[in-house]
Amino acid sequence: MELLIEKIKNEGIVLSSSVLKVDSFLNHQIDPQLMQEVGKEFAERFADSGITRILTIESSGIAPAVMTGLQLKVPVVFARKRKSLTLVNDLITASVYSFTKQETSEISVSKKYLDEKDKVLIIDDFLANGQAALGLAEIAKKANASIAGIGIVIEKGFQDGGRLLREQGYRVESLAILDSLENGMVSFENSSEKMEELAR
Amino acid sequence: MELLIEKIKNEGIVLSSSVLKVDSFLNHQIDPQLMQEVGKEFAERFADSGITRILTIESSGIAPAVMTGLQLKVPVVFARKRKSLTLVNDLITASVYSFTKQETSEISVSKKYLDEKDKVLIIDDFLANGQAALGLAEIAKKANASIAGIGIVIEKGFQDGGRLLREQGYRVESLAILDSLENGMVSFENSSEKMEELAR
Repeated sequence: MELLIEKIKNEGIVLSSSVLKVDSFLNHQIDPQLMQEVGKEFAERFADSGITRILTIESSGIAPAVMTGLQLKVPVVFARKRKSLTLVNDLITASVYSFTKQETSEISVSKKYLDEKDKVLIIDDFLANGQAALGLAEIAKKANASIAGIGIVIEKGFQDGGRLLREQGYRVESLAILDSLENGMVSFENSSEKMEELAR
Repeated sequence: MELLIEKIKNEGIVLSSSVLKVDSFLNHQIDPQLMQEVGKEFAERFADSGITRILTIESSGIAPAVMTGLQLKVPVVFARKRKSLTLVNDLITASVYSFTKQETSEISVSKKYLDEKDKVLIIDDFLANGQAALGLAEIAKKANASIAGIGIVIEKGFQDGGRLLREQGYRVESLAILDSLENGMVSFENSSEKMEELAR
């Protein structure tokens, strides 16, 4: 998605060879116009998938998920993160390990908002090691919902998550795929930019 | 806002005389179409206020804030909650006491995304004791930004927050004002419903 790639080029800050900061439009400050375009793009890519519900995780997944839900005219559910298992009554939970924080947290969704009739589109802001997406997929599976695909705003193509999810058979659509963050530079995966151009 | 009041009447669950659960469209599951209407309503009410930025707090403030930002064509910044003061470098922080959780947490915004040129619209999902809104206002003041007003999706009119904020001179616009949650029933403030009718 050209608009997103331009935004990353102009405003992304490479903090290390594995960390890209996009606080100016996605993770702290949010650009609503860009999020609307992101929502349109996901809605287009999954237009024929019969999506009934979008599943994301607080907090940075919410904006792209809500904009996608607006386009597809389906509700959005965001999983909550909690450190400990408190009230698991009526909750579907999964454990998510964060490599960055080196800690495991529980994520949870109320049983009321996900069931076996659902065709779920999972949306998240970043895909790195894939742990959050796998946790969301686990929740969808526990609810006996089917998973139509996974929409990612920015995929770190040099980390394992994308391969892991695709090997498990999930359709993963990433709007920007980072090839590398070496030497303080963002480079994008050729295939992704090529696909972008072919799509025009 | 009639659409919102209808939604609360149909889907809100009164858990106690002070707690209304609106998990089906605002706090866990999100109704994107309703949020779009909420955004349009806030944008209309603050159309002439010269808003340059919207300030909200994770997680449930994000959806209404982003939809308002989309209409007003301004960026949205969401304050992060954190239990402890870790990296305060480049952060503007405020303490927010939660009566529900009986704990104080720090909320923070990066200095980069709020400054003295800003005219800020504060958006939040609920207004009860006003602590979150006061914390966001404190952050805006510390950044020397001016505060154009506070937009609340659901105000608990029987709690102190609204009075507190209005007494301090803030313009508070609440789209639904609850008069009471006694006896398991939601009743709305007359003035609010009257205003709704007058607006038609």
